[in-house]
Amino acid sequence: MSQTTFKARDPDFAQRVRHSFARQEFMTFLGVELAGVSAGFAEIRLPYQKGLTQQHGFFHGGAIGTLADNAGGYAAFSLLSAKDAILTVEYKVNMMAPAIGDALVARGRVLRSGRQLSVSHTDVFSIKDGVEKLVATSLGTFMTVIGVADTEMGV
Amino acid sequence: MSQTTFKARDPDFAQRVRHSFARQEFMTFLGVELAGVSAGFAEIRLPYQKGLTQQHGFFHGGAIGTLADNAGGYAAFSLLSAKDAILTVEYKVNMMAPAIGDALVARGRVLRSGRQLSVSHTDVFSIKDGVEKLVATSLGTFMTVIGVADTEMGV
Amino acid sequence: MSQTTFKARDPDFAQRVRHSFARQEFMTFLGVELAGVSAGFAEIRLPYQKGLTQQHGFFHGGAIGTLADNAGGYAAFSLLSAKDAILTVEYKVNMMAPAIGDALVARGRVLRSGRQLSVSHTDVFSIKDGVEKLVATSLGTFMTVIGVADTEMGV
Amino acid sequence: MSQTTFKARDPDFAQRVRHSFARQEFMTFLGVELAGVSAGFAEIRLPYQKGLTQQHGFFHGGAIGTLADNAGGYAAFSLLSAKDAILTVEYKVNMMAPAIGDALVARGRVLRSGRQLSVSHTDVFSIKDGVEKLVATSLGTFMTVIGVADTEMGV
Repeated sequence: MSQTTFKARDPDFAQRVRHSFARQEFMTFLGVELAGVSAGFAEIRLPYQKGLTQQHGFFHGGAIGTLADNAGGYAAFSLLSAKDAILTVEYKVNMMAPAIGDALVARGRVLRSGRQLSVSHTDVFSIKDGVEKLVATSLGTFMTVIGVADTEMGV
Repeated sequence: MSQTTFKARDPDFAQRVRHSFARQEFMTFLGVELAGVSAGFAEIRLPYQKGLTQQHGFFHGGAIGTLADNAGGYAAFSLLSAKDAILTVEYKVNMMAPAIGDALVARGRVLRSGRQLSVSHTDVFSIKDGVEKLVATSLGTFMTVIGVADTEMGV
Repeated sequence: MSQTTFKARDPDFAQRVRHSFARQEFMTFLGVELAGVSAGFAEIRLPYQKGLTQQHGFFHGGAIGTLADNAGGYAAFSLLSAKDAILTVEYKVNMMAPAIGDALVARGRVLRSGRQLSVSHTDVFSIKDGVEKLVATSLGTFMTVIGVADTEMGV
Repeated sequence: MSQTTFKARDPDFAQRVRHSFARQEFMTFLGVELAGVSAGFAEIRLPYQKGLTQQHGFFHGGAIGTLADNAGGYAAFSLLSAKDAILTVEYKVNMMAPAIGDALVARGRVLRSGRQLSVSHTDVFSIKDGVEKLVATSLGTFMTVIGVADTEMGV
């Protein structure tokens, strides 16, 4: 993976990401925390609870996909102007290993930040006794809703 | 989409799907119900609650992806022998419209049921005042864990 | 798959699709023919030649992916205005069976035709002795380049 | 992207990859060359010719997808035993920028090498006047055909 460095257009991007993230009821519901933000990067973390598991006791693939979508989306959102919102166009996630442990952590990195479309790559790791293991990898595409601030958009 | 008809190898497939589905803590946690099963097909349903929304008030893309993964996976699982378990290899989901309404329903159909790998296609609809709207479409790949029954597998 | 019917905005869409298709040097190089167009639908066909095979003698997955991308893209292009061009954002293709036979045929259908983004689903079949077999299925996302006609765009 | 180091099981993996690659008629047809192989890695290169372009004069997305599939697949194949063949299960490719230049180069890296399934990530670059530009990124899944050597498989 070629690593690209991005410069944020909005100097207050980190606060804007945190604010938007906090408005996602689903993240609160699942217990996902925003662990870190920088320009073109977001890290989120989901502590284990039994309610997140599938039929074999592993973290559910849907929870893993949710993290992949969200870390990739907020990585992309960090590079937008303060006047624009973001929507997920699509994402694809490969499960690499059964996810067992104390928590999941997802790290999303922007690969392309275009005017209309962004592409992010996100790795999801399980953490058990402090050891990280790659459990999923994902590519996602996100659309900029130009001229509609994140807080103005919605139902 | 070419429609294929499948014959289940396990006559008790519907009960086996229901039993496995019920063991998924994450589905209980989210409120997802198994609404229908036939050979190579599964329908699941998720009633709206505020805890499922993203920052703009729509159903969260992660919840939508979870339904896509699960309906596709159980469609594939319905065609396995009673001695085999299933795991998600990967899935890809395209968001087609903001998902608003009283519930989401996902219908997964098997396109290929091979010895080791199955492929399913799943459509996700929002339901508002009884009217369905396509909000997402998905392709998923699933691996048969040969010789390990669903109830034997796990942590 | 829910089937949607679309109405073309450009009455001359079929000619526009044919004209654009004919300008693709890669299709001529491979021998791909445009077999049919309607509003939101395109069918393309690739006769077998040894030069299209992979190491086991099957049609190469790259050729199959090319058909999936192209049929899906022209299905979407058929619904655009005459003033707009189209670009592939991403596609995903699942291989369902080894592709052997006299020809491949790909049928692309639009699932969503938005202002900026279209989503198509494409099935690819092998044809052997007149019998069709599903060998691949694909989802693709395409971006409208608004206000730049297909013939104006380019290097 | 977490970088993983792999150890090849077959000491003659590089020769095995070269031999298999050379048997792909489609690569010869397109002019794709195998530029480098190491354990879990493959680099392939496609010089520009007009026959590879789409309607706007860019490298065709199908050619780009072909490279992504092939570099990812041979990266995975390098880690198999000499007794096993490989087949593409699925791949997904995101187009990042119009591909213009003297050549395309694709670098595939294995993320997971399991008994039955491998996952690779591939970046595709255009090269113009010696400068590389990322034009596409891809994730692919590949299946090991256990106990059937690459040269034994086929039509």
